[in-house]
Amino acid sequence: MQRQRVLRVIAETYERFGFVPLETPALEYADVLTGKYGDEGEKLLYRFRDQGDREVALRYDLTVPLARVVAQYPELPKPFRRYQIAQVWRAENTQKGRFREFTQCDVDVVGTENLLADGEIIQVAASVLDNLGFERYIIRFNNRKLLNGMLSLAKIPATDRITVLRSLDKWQKIGEEGVRKELAGILSEHQLSDITDLLPKAGEEFFTWSKRMSPKFLTDALAREGWLELNQLIDLLKNSPNSEAFQPDILLARGLDYYTGTIIEATLPDAPELGSVFGGGRYDKLIGMFTGKDVPAVGVAAGVDRLVAAMEELGMAEERASTADVLVLMMEKSMAAELHELAAELRDAGIKTELYYDAVKLDKQLKYADKLGIPLALLYGSKEREESNATLKVLATKEQKTVHREKVADAVKRLLSASA
Amino acid sequence: MQRQRVLRVIAETYERFGFVPLETPALEYADVLTGKYGDEGEKLLYRFRDQGDREVALRYDLTVPLARVVAQYPELPKPFRRYQIAQVWRAENTQKGRFREFTQCDVDVVGTENLLADGEIIQVAASVLDNLGFERYIIRFNNRKLLNGMLSLAKIPATDRITVLRSLDKWQKIGEEGVRKELAGILSEHQLSDITDLLPKAGEEFFTWSKRMSPKFLTDALAREGWLELNQLIDLLKNSPNSEAFQPDILLARGLDYYTGTIIEATLPDAPELGSVFGGGRYDKLIGMFTGKDVPAVGVAAGVDRLVAAMEELGMAEERASTADVLVLMMEKSMAAELHELAAELRDAGIKTELYYDAVKLDKQLKYADKLGIPLALLYGSKEREESNATLKVLATKEQKTVHREKVADAVKRLLSASA
Repeated sequence: MQRQRVLRVIAETYERFGFVPLETPALEYADVLTGKYGDEGEKLLYRFRDQGDREVALRYDLTVPLARVVAQYPELPKPFRRYQIAQVWRAENTQKGRFREFTQCDVDVVGTENLLADGEIIQVAASVLDNLGFERYIIRFNNRKLLNGMLSLAKIPATDRITVLRSLDKWQKIGEEGVRKELAGILSEHQLSDITDLLPKAGEEFFTWSKRMSPKFLTDALAREGWLELNQLIDLLKNSPNSEAFQPDILLARGLDYYTGTIIEATLPDAPELGSVFGGGRYDKLIGMFTGKDVPAVGVAAGVDRLVAAMEELGMAEERASTADVLVLMMEKSMAAELHELAAELRDAGIKTELYYDAVKLDKQLKYADKLGIPLALLYGSKEREESNATLKVLATKEQKTVHREKVADAVKRLLSASA
Repeated sequence: MQRQRVLRVIAETYERFGFVPLETPALEYADVLTGKYGDEGEKLLYRFRDQGDREVALRYDLTVPLARVVAQYPELPKPFRRYQIAQVWRAENTQKGRFREFTQCDVDVVGTENLLADGEIIQVAASVLDNLGFERYIIRFNNRKLLNGMLSLAKIPATDRITVLRSLDKWQKIGEEGVRKELAGILSEHQLSDITDLLPKAGEEFFTWSKRMSPKFLTDALAREGWLELNQLIDLLKNSPNSEAFQPDILLARGLDYYTGTIIEATLPDAPELGSVFGGGRYDKLIGMFTGKDVPAVGVAAGVDRLVAAMEELGMAEERASTADVLVLMMEKSMAAELHELAAELRDAGIKTELYYDAVKLDKQLKYADKLGIPLALLYGSKEREESNATLKVLATKEQKTVHREKVADAVKRLLSASA
């Protein structure tokens, strides 16, 4: 139920930004997926031959199927703003929080290079976290062009770049010493110093660093473009009501090699061990792998399992085993048809209602309500019918309230809103 | 979008009856699924060996996974009221309305023989159809015990029963002559007459027939039990506000052989060619295949693709290509950051808002809104900023309205509710 609530908030938030839902099939032709995820990823594809002797595979993520759809339907109006909430499959070794089947919640804008799209993608992630009730979150962002430009300024060969970026990405976790150790086998002492010279000094603010380095960045075409984009994005976000959550971070790199510009990652300071709860960025070259012609795109994905785990950890999850708000007790067997109708009447009034079927001891029925976390019980037997009333029992307080039979739905609503 | 809306109404209606969502994995161990769907069904399973050399298969329906879960977790409180909305896979030959991957929306009560559960399952199907806005629907129901009892009274051998039932099920489609022709090779003329003697005469009302036949039915233990159950269910439903939609029908049989009691089927008189939009019944023996001990259960599944098709056919579907209610136009490039914030402000007020990113001709932006079916456009440029106002344009009527900048969200809400 908690997962379901989180997924609903995510979908509603995506729709509030004008994104439309897309469904793609779980099985894609294998050649759509191969060659997209690197050697390691490719090993994790669930592939097989179907009854029609077609080589198929379960989707590994939602980005490649999106790219396939955009390539296949060039008539889609651009920008194409879609979200997709669906299962993906990876033949991983399972571990805590890592499953072979899991849910991805992607939201992407396809067909524009305009940085307003990057800004909105960051905003939609923030809105999801707001709407789920997180009081504190940090959305860090950076720019791959700037990072690649910096690596080019430090004369790192292009083939080593993704390795170096993955190492830099761990800076906050393993510190400068850790990064230096990791890269010692790959880079010369000289190259290492050249890179660290470009990075902020310990404790240096992003803006101080950015101003200090700008003359240098303006000397490299790629660094310059990235630096300008990053600053434009900062400008776009600085007046948001939640602007303090948005942090440019030159050490953010992210591992995937298809990012081409903005990169984005959201974390929860109150549940740091869960890692990022949103991740994404701009990938202007991926769709071109299908079309032969580049189509720019930017997006993020929510990590729904981590969000659910964080809400549980922080006491934000509603822990109930029922969706019902009221349990209609089966007082006497002879009342069954009438109570069946009473339950229908409450549902018609919009109240989530469960009917207990068997006329067992009331105590047992109340225990059932308690176990499932149903907050209210409704008692209506032949005695109540005679007196044209009904009794409502609040399970948490054991408080009872007798109301006129005709006013039952109103009374339930009042009690529910009072206890909410 | 229309599918999404239908799925949301189905989930919300299921929850209003106190059902809880369940997710099961798409891949089950193959031996969980084999031997459950008959020879024909088994051929349609997508089976393969995974990287860990496990024989697995994509789920074929949601009922067998439910049975597996109930058997695996005996601690689940009973009755266990779950719904599941998920994809299933069958290696069929595709045709109009029949896909290899499709969505099932199951709702079941597990762990009770009480007929109140059967009544609620019929009610929940009716509520879904009400909540989707169908003005006319018919929910037919019958009882397999009564049908089997009648076949036993007509001395049909048990091995022929499912074939005979499947034929009877077509009575309304192919008529008595058609059924007689189908069964001519299987039953003797004498057996055929014995069955048709037990059925209603042409035009005979269910209740007249039921009363006429009751002395006969009471002579066979199974027929008696089924007849009593059917009448108890009729009693339970007769005072519902939508009681005229509920029709007992002795010719309803349904094809699946695991039904043991009540069987249920919903159709739309305004879209009869689509066939049933809900189908289900009681299956008290299926879970026992896993546990060795029978666990009673009853449920139905919505045919979401057919419901969507019917809504489109009957003009009930909202045909829009965007979720947004208002498009914020990009009047001037220099206003980008401010319009980005204005869009965020509208979303915070609960309004589904899309921002146009590029400062192209307004005409082109308005055409985009029109194409996607976004009802309102918001115009706010430097001139409007100077005058502290904004202009709203209703796309359908071309009507324009200028409002104070601070009142934009309220004005949008008023215009949307006026045009709704």
